[in-house]
Amino acid sequence: MGDIAILTEADLRRAVTLGAPVLKAVEDAFRLLASGKVVMPPILSMEIAEAHGEVDVKTAYLPGFEHFAIKVSPGFFDNPKLGLPSLNGLMILFSAKTGLVAALLLDNGYLTDIRTAAAGAIAAKYLAPKKVETAAVLGTGAQARLQIIAAHQVRPFKKVIVWGRDPVRAQACAEDIATALKIEADVVKDAAAAVAEAQLVVTTTSARKPILRAEWLHKGLHITAMGADQAGKNEIDPRAVALADLYVCDRVSQAAALGELRAARAAGLMNGETPPELGAIVARTNPGRPSETAITLCDLTGTGAQDTAIASYAFAAARKLGIGTKITA
Amino acid sequence: MGDIAILTEADLRRAVTLGAPVLKAVEDAFRLLASGKVVMPPILSMEIAEAHGEVDVKTAYLPGFEHFAIKVSPGFFDNPKLGLPSLNGLMILFSAKTGLVAALLLDNGYLTDIRTAAAGAIAAKYLAPKKVETAAVLGTGAQARLQIIAAHQVRPFKKVIVWGRDPVRAQACAEDIATALKIEADVVKDAAAAVAEAQLVVTTTSARKPILRAEWLHKGLHITAMGADQAGKNEIDPRAVALADLYVCDRVSQAAALGELRAARAAGLMNGETPPELGAIVARTNPGRPSETAITLCDLTGTGAQDTAIASYAFAAARKLGIGTKITA
Repeated sequence: MGDIAILTEADLRRAVTLGAPVLKAVEDAFRLLASGKVVMPPILSMEIAEAHGEVDVKTAYLPGFEHFAIKVSPGFFDNPKLGLPSLNGLMILFSAKTGLVAALLLDNGYLTDIRTAAAGAIAAKYLAPKKVETAAVLGTGAQARLQIIAAHQVRPFKKVIVWGRDPVRAQACAEDIATALKIEADVVKDAAAAVAEAQLVVTTTSARKPILRAEWLHKGLHITAMGADQAGKNEIDPRAVALADLYVCDRVSQAAALGELRAARAAGLMNGETPPELGAIVARTNPGRPSETAITLCDLTGTGAQDTAIASYAFAAARKLGIGTKITA
Repeated sequence: MGDIAILTEADLRRAVTLGAPVLKAVEDAFRLLASGKVVMPPILSMEIAEAHGEVDVKTAYLPGFEHFAIKVSPGFFDNPKLGLPSLNGLMILFSAKTGLVAALLLDNGYLTDIRTAAAGAIAAKYLAPKKVETAAVLGTGAQARLQIIAAHQVRPFKKVIVWGRDPVRAQACAEDIATALKIEADVVKDAAAAVAEAQLVVTTTSARKPILRAEWLHKGLHITAMGADQAGKNEIDPRAVALADLYVCDRVSQAAALGELRAARAAGLMNGETPPELGAIVARTNPGRPSETAITLCDLTGTGAQDTAIASYAFAAARKLGIGTKITA
């Protein structure tokens, strides 16, 4: 049935880095998503309670793309006890003409990390104030680093403030960011202080109760909330979601089921409106940030459209570099 | 992240054949499905209308199993024009403890063919009259052959009657069955004649309008309808579904959305009842066939539980034979 390309995580780390071409690929996917021509079914989700695990499957067909991706993301939260990462997974690229398997991208979640950070950068590009002197990140994991590194490409801020529940992890995160971006990166004990000083805040935690309070909102602030991607998760005070001058999400159906919008609506807020999606702002059918002093919030749950975009990009990049192995199946 | 086994279609054809061990694996999966402990989310389905294609993703977690499978089944119906089969796909086995990828089963739909035929045999084992002299198949594709070959293992009938819209294809199907089973296999022009003579009828078409009429039902008949697996498909006259003494399906939620039950309910029939599932009959919590002379019908849409069962079986069988290649990812 033809050759299938196999790309390992090492192959994909060589072929795909978090730079302008990746940001453009993800930006283009958001623009397409706003066209109404993308086919993106609801996420398939299965819980394996006995193993403290779950698995999500995402996909989307982007018109004009040679392939579509199916991404399988297992999250098994006892893995760290076994010395294994919680998040893993792979992407499979299929021909959008014949359905034949074109490539297996054994990325162990690497491409998800990259496309998630790229989406944060696109949110910042279109929604953050033009001038960002200081960025803050609430969270200290891999996405805390990647979100800041990606956002810096669209808003070259001079300083980063890191907040996390664990000060040791916060310090390590700040040091990694300082090394990567060659800018000042400080740790604060109080998330309020981080938000107060920043024009751009990214939240990257798995919080199930808000970590960013409505009282902390200030003029000229943009927040990207990327942590909540499940019905139980909630990083942003529902009142903050309602108070923002502009609330934007990646996909309304997903945000309402899995994101900050879900928590806000559960609190009786945001029920009367269908908010705009990031793609509409990228496509300029929605004006986006109303003014430099407005408060904006972008709620990212992660879309199959981003997965098809990054998998297609990775496959093309690997082919160009002659990376990967082939199997005849 | 450890070794991943890669099994090609050729590997899987060597390791997995349609015999008693496969039937037992699928039978066990039906029994488990009746236990209420299986986690089986709704099918993820995406249509790519431009390419006359669709893709379905099925999965299930079976308690006690070391792995769970995610199966991706693309169907692209312009493929024959390109000399390619319409149906393809692969299965991926993940550790049910850690979510790590254990094996890629690049089966191009082979394992789906096998587990679908095995399910038909289990339906016949528990629902067909004890004595089946003659079996009939309405349909002439790969499943027509496989269903009859599998059913013969549980009801060693002496004669097969094949009906199809295309007499040339019907003749070829009958010849293949005669060769495989070394029994008489005849072609009839009229589906009614096939049903009249048989005690066991299997329907394997992609019909969107009934091909088996209620008037043809007779005492001591069992029908397995395996063609309908999408909202538009319908092989069995809704009145026949309602008239059967016992209607059974593989999964009520799927049959009501995709199977003969959907068409029957759309015709205003079968709305007042929740029918039994095949697993309950395998588990003996439902008595099954009421008498030798009863008319029974089994509506199979195909379940993720069967996929996890066959993929697990295939992986174990290949390991035992030392078949397959490994990749470190």
